[in-house]
Amino acid sequence: MTEQAANIGVVGLAVMGSNLARNLASREGNTVAVFNRTHAKTEELVAEHPEAGFVSTASYEEFAAALQKPRTAIIMVKAGGPTDAVIDALVEVFEPGDIIVDGGNSLFTDTIRREKAVRETGINYVGMGVSGGEEGALLGPSLMPGGSDESWITLGPILRSIAAIAEGEPCVTHVGHDGAGHFVKMVHNGIEYADMQLIAEAYDLIRRGTGKSPAEIAEVFAEWNKGELESYLIEITAEVLRQVDAATGQPLVDVILDQAGAKGTGAWTVQTALSLGTPVSGIAEATFARSLSSHPEQREISRDLPGPTEGFTAQDPDAFIEQVRLALYASKIVAYSQGFDEIRAGAAEYDWNIDLGKIAAIWRGGCIIRARFLNRITDAYSETPDLPVLLTAPFFVDVFTRAQDAWREIVATSAKVGIPAPAFSSSLAYYDGLRAERLPAALIQGQRDFFGAHTYKRIDKPGTFHTLWSGDRTEIEAEDTH
Amino acid sequence: MTEQAANIGVVGLAVMGSNLARNLASREGNTVAVFNRTHAKTEELVAEHPEAGFVSTASYEEFAAALQKPRTAIIMVKAGGPTDAVIDALVEVFEPGDIIVDGGNSLFTDTIRREKAVRETGINYVGMGVSGGEEGALLGPSLMPGGSDESWITLGPILRSIAAIAEGEPCVTHVGHDGAGHFVKMVHNGIEYADMQLIAEAYDLIRRGTGKSPAEIAEVFAEWNKGELESYLIEITAEVLRQVDAATGQPLVDVILDQAGAKGTGAWTVQTALSLGTPVSGIAEATFARSLSSHPEQREISRDLPGPTEGFTAQDPDAFIEQVRLALYASKIVAYSQGFDEIRAGAAEYDWNIDLGKIAAIWRGGCIIRARFLNRITDAYSETPDLPVLLTAPFFVDVFTRAQDAWREIVATSAKVGIPAPAFSSSLAYYDGLRAERLPAALIQGQRDFFGAHTYKRIDKPGTFHTLWSGDRTEIEAEDTH
Repeated sequence: MTEQAANIGVVGLAVMGSNLARNLASREGNTVAVFNRTHAKTEELVAEHPEAGFVSTASYEEFAAALQKPRTAIIMVKAGGPTDAVIDALVEVFEPGDIIVDGGNSLFTDTIRREKAVRETGINYVGMGVSGGEEGALLGPSLMPGGSDESWITLGPILRSIAAIAEGEPCVTHVGHDGAGHFVKMVHNGIEYADMQLIAEAYDLIRRGTGKSPAEIAEVFAEWNKGELESYLIEITAEVLRQVDAATGQPLVDVILDQAGAKGTGAWTVQTALSLGTPVSGIAEATFARSLSSHPEQREISRDLPGPTEGFTAQDPDAFIEQVRLALYASKIVAYSQGFDEIRAGAAEYDWNIDLGKIAAIWRGGCIIRARFLNRITDAYSETPDLPVLLTAPFFVDVFTRAQDAWREIVATSAKVGIPAPAFSSSLAYYDGLRAERLPAALIQGQRDFFGAHTYKRIDKPGTFHTLWSGDRTEIEAEDTH
Repeated sequence: MTEQAANIGVVGLAVMGSNLARNLASREGNTVAVFNRTHAKTEELVAEHPEAGFVSTASYEEFAAALQKPRTAIIMVKAGGPTDAVIDALVEVFEPGDIIVDGGNSLFTDTIRREKAVRETGINYVGMGVSGGEEGALLGPSLMPGGSDESWITLGPILRSIAAIAEGEPCVTHVGHDGAGHFVKMVHNGIEYADMQLIAEAYDLIRRGTGKSPAEIAEVFAEWNKGELESYLIEITAEVLRQVDAATGQPLVDVILDQAGAKGTGAWTVQTALSLGTPVSGIAEATFARSLSSHPEQREISRDLPGPTEGFTAQDPDAFIEQVRLALYASKIVAYSQGFDEIRAGAAEYDWNIDLGKIAAIWRGGCIIRARFLNRITDAYSETPDLPVLLTAPFFVDVFTRAQDAWREIVATSAKVGIPAPAFSSSLAYYDGLRAERLPAALIQGQRDFFGAHTYKRIDKPGTFHTLWSGDRTEIEAEDTH
């Protein structure tokens, strides 16, 4: 090991960490110091990839000594306790001006807390969302770093060198201060949940409505992927549906147990949105659809619940498939709009200066929800940076104009024939809620005032009012209890 | 002030605290010591209600001295910091064996934390949900105390004396240890959100589908309240809809601003359910419907989004209203079923021995969601205490058999004509999800395995599997990564 030989270091050499280290090492000008708690793992990586020219280190002291100043280290370990432990160890051996980057899937509030604590030592702390899975880490992820402006000066060029490239631009931007990067990565994952659930509902409707086989539906998705729905998730859906199980000769999708797992970022996205007062109903339905699927004991005793007596066959399969496609597109726009609404609300709450159009741009490559369609989001925010609801941008309004009849038809059909489409229907209800001239929320305010004296506001004058419901039912001006 | 004259004390004399103190004082055998940080408030209460025979105290020392042992005090102050401050003060002046009850709307995890801390001192700590608003506190609330068995010996008789009575039984039970009471109260409120949203959607559909006036719709609700939907919320809906605004001569519901407020317990319920993996989608939609309504700037620019070109008028108004009634009933059963599912999951997670049937029983009186229908829930759990999903109980299956066609028709209609019915449609989608023989969750597992090597399980053999998607696409046995 040569002292100060490396310009960047990686701590934590499981698959994601190793792949990110190899990605870094493969770029011109980078020399990468690597460290893992179990040193054998470090030696294994270094031996397997001599081309990378890794600087192997056996202790945090060696790791620190191997790095040029300002030292820059990316932590790739499990979120939670393990991340805290590595931070503590690095703070011991690093100096003011050095940079610690957490590239794990940390909850943004943990990142805010850690940034505050580390900043006290003069060391820069950066929480960075890394999307794209193992392959992305190796070949080019979408990167969402938060942290200070100072850290970005050093980090920027390194991260630009390893990020995915979309239409010539590296998929990385300095998202905002402290927890902004992990916040945006969280919402990215929430949108991913919604997108996947919408695709799953589209597949289910086509399967049950047309009787087509998974292989045939794979062709439908492959075809969709040539048009306005083009995206990585649509592409891999075709691949998954095409796959035949070698053991049984059945479509793989039919032998996979229909209980969806989750790692928690969908739930975080919804929990955070609830605190912010942002209605991300599509992401919530997607998250809950996964939980519902994972309760076999509940589903088992529910199989005989009464359903529609008649079966369902679409009269014109091709027309039906086109309706599903339009419903999927419209619902997808709602999901993305809700996600961006959450980022906007988060930025306001935590005082982050986030360029929403830029966020859409860095998701075009490397990450799971990459899609051509994201350019339209960038366009929308370029035109109107403070757009209060993304889906009102002219391009999306055009899509709704084309798609809404089909969307309504598909949601209505799913309800009538008993095919669950929670994300499709929730998206439409949200859309119609936004559109509504008046909402029955006024009745809810009346009920709340009746039973809890929670007061209400009026449409015709300022102030806060209460009706004396258990008295003479006159109205009085009241203190705002909201 | 006489030493040890009182058998119970109340700290915090805002409306809820004063009313609860007066309720306690009105019952045979109770003498109530009262204390408020601002002593003038205590003197005011004592002066205004000489019939109560309150023992006025001016300091925590006096308050403690006024109480018989074991001292029992109910705190009725704001959740959060103020509650912690009062607990700290009481711990100073109380002795082992005494009982501190928090009757505020505390988050159950705070209650768990406080119970643990206070228990160290030998003092009993009880978190108690109190439902019924100001009137309930005065005349008889539904009470949901948690805490130790020891505290229940002293508290039980006192609480039974002040609780609402439903069909001869006091609406109080020892819910379970530490945070169980506040947990159950939280879910109660979540169900209340769903119930109110469902009623609001029913009203909106009838209004827009039949053109009836609020006063006419009040009669519909009054009529419904004589049948199987009989409940406090249906009753007060009729009252609110009947109310005419004196200033304008308009129905009050038309001059109330249609932006629904919230105090956060709906959000807590959903956030907790997300952590527990329990799909309370109806409560989530209800909570999000309120947030959507409260963003006027978003609604303003969304008014011109394309909607159905034709207006909507129900062909047969009476038949339509009956369909709405059935849809409301079916959706309501889903909402309650989801709520009880959350309580079941919470009890399992936190090791509370909660009698679910008893919870339904104590909600029959005093609280906002009180309804005859709760007896059916008690029956269901009496028959099958470990019922995995409430809505599969025979009584509810009968309702679904009667109601499902109408329910499907109403959800389909709302989608087609553009009237937002997020809670109606979400409930139906959940119901159809539970019923489904196969869910497209299998496709989601395939996607997750494709992009993140998250693995999947098979329907035909145990184990965890991964397809080598970027390799030769054979299947390998894998470690379970979720």
